[in-house]
Amino acid sequence: MNETGIARLQELITRGPFNRWLNFTVLRSDDAGIEVRAGWREDWVVNPERRYTHGGILAAIVDVAADYAIAAKLGRPVPTIDVRVDYHKAAMPGDLIAKARIVRMGSQYSTAEASIFDQEGALVASGRGTYFTAPPK
Amino acid sequence: MNETGIARLQELITRGPFNRWLNFTVLRSDDAGIEVRAGWREDWVVNPERRYTHGGILAAIVDVAADYAIAAKLGRPVPTIDVRVDYHKAAMPGDLIAKARIVRMGSQYSTAEASIFDQEGALVASGRGTYFTAPPK
Amino acid sequence: MNETGIARLQELITRGPFNRWLNFTVLRSDDAGIEVRAGWREDWVVNPERRYTHGGILAAIVDVAADYAIAAKLGRPVPTIDVRVDYHKAAMPGDLIAKARIVRMGSQYSTAEASIFDQEGALVASGRGTYFTAPPK
Amino acid sequence: MNETGIARLQELITRGPFNRWLNFTVLRSDDAGIEVRAGWREDWVVNPERRYTHGGILAAIVDVAADYAIAAKLGRPVPTIDVRVDYHKAAMPGDLIAKARIVRMGSQYSTAEASIFDQEGALVASGRGTYFTAPPK
Repeated sequence: MNETGIARLQELITRGPFNRWLNFTVLRSDDAGIEVRAGWREDWVVNPERRYTHGGILAAIVDVAADYAIAAKLGRPVPTIDVRVDYHKAAMPGDLIAKARIVRMGSQYSTAEASIFDQEGALVASGRGTYFTAPPK
Repeated sequence: MNETGIARLQELITRGPFNRWLNFTVLRSDDAGIEVRAGWREDWVVNPERRYTHGGILAAIVDVAADYAIAAKLGRPVPTIDVRVDYHKAAMPGDLIAKARIVRMGSQYSTAEASIFDQEGALVASGRGTYFTAPPK
Repeated sequence: MNETGIARLQELITRGPFNRWLNFTVLRSDDAGIEVRAGWREDWVVNPERRYTHGGILAAIVDVAADYAIAAKLGRPVPTIDVRVDYHKAAMPGDLIAKARIVRMGSQYSTAEASIFDQEGALVASGRGTYFTAPPK
Repeated sequence: MNETGIARLQELITRGPFNRWLNFTVLRSDDAGIEVRAGWREDWVVNPERRYTHGGILAAIVDVAADYAIAAKLGRPVPTIDVRVDYHKAAMPGDLIAKARIVRMGSQYSTAEASIFDQEGALVASGRGTYFTAPPK
């Protein structure tokens, strides 16, 4: 397992059209995990009056951040087996920061988790995913 | 609890910018639950070579469909407390159909589930959410 | 994949000390899934005044029932990757019935779900697990 | 929210027959969360040859530990809305240590998480629960 640098991680993440749509910027990648920013867009709004971000966007960010915490170790993103997301606070318009780390790396499947913070540093959502990490055939 | 018709459900769902971006069409709403179609777009792709749909999109569709199975009963969408999604099969480009139903309706919080099918009728993802269904104050 | 009869399933389930402690009886096993009864014991109580069953017991029953829905197909129980349980209603003292089915059978990992009913037939808990179903080496 | 001491937490946890069966000892309770030990018993075994602990036991320990991380703040255990558990490593016979903390405390529902370690300090399972924390009526 060799560490993948921020530039390589950014390159991997930017390949995906949906990742591009979520405007991901890789901010950090080290032994403790990764940190990414998702750039807000008007399409993320769930409720036009209250204007907070749709839970589906937050779920997608949890999944991507947790997946790329594993990609930082394996050098490639991995298939998601399942994902679970807890919603803690309405995420108002603005970029979001996700911090993710590996909970346990396995030879067949692995667990990673991510927490999403708003511009004020408040925790808005967090969750975990199980990822398929068997070697590609 | 009075049933909300398809037109009303469509109106509620279309209010949200992210729901509009997911191109939802309400196909059915009855005692057994609801059925919605999400209209595919190129931005949903996770992997540019293999071209399948990002898991974050599928998570969002599970959340929206399960939420609106409850909205069909309550007359309003409800806040998601948490959501969990299982991925069963790569979802290739094309519209997706989600079928959702209430598992258990409670006075404070409720559980609903949704299954997503591709154009061939294959199950690509499914999951559940817990929703906050206390009366609004 | 050959069907394993009720007697064989009962034999497999009874091998485990914790399964024996949960007093499982296999009631049904067919293409639609399995049905098992867990025999109540005083040790299951969480709250001595209200006397309802501990959520940990319900989680264990969901896991066992979902696992054995897969065991009925594979001829062996399989390792649980993760399990998620929703609590719907307090389960008062008395035997519990769990109905379980495979959601999707995969070559590497599979999803199964279970619902638990009390003596009056009310749904008290339900949930899903992801199971490791790669062939044993 | 006033801190409940270890002795009070031990008293609350010991009230429940299933908690007693799991032989819980409260080891620590401070601002960072709680730590409890569950005392192993032969009934926990899932597989008589390999002798590791049943996932249902680990799920129950995650639920209890996460719940009592909240109880340490509220002065009372709270109803579990849902729980999700990831299995990381077979837990061989021996006492288990669970460390739990609140992820986010809410006025209506709250999230807490727990990690379970074996005698060698290896992470064997971890997970999260959503708890109903509205004031009792």
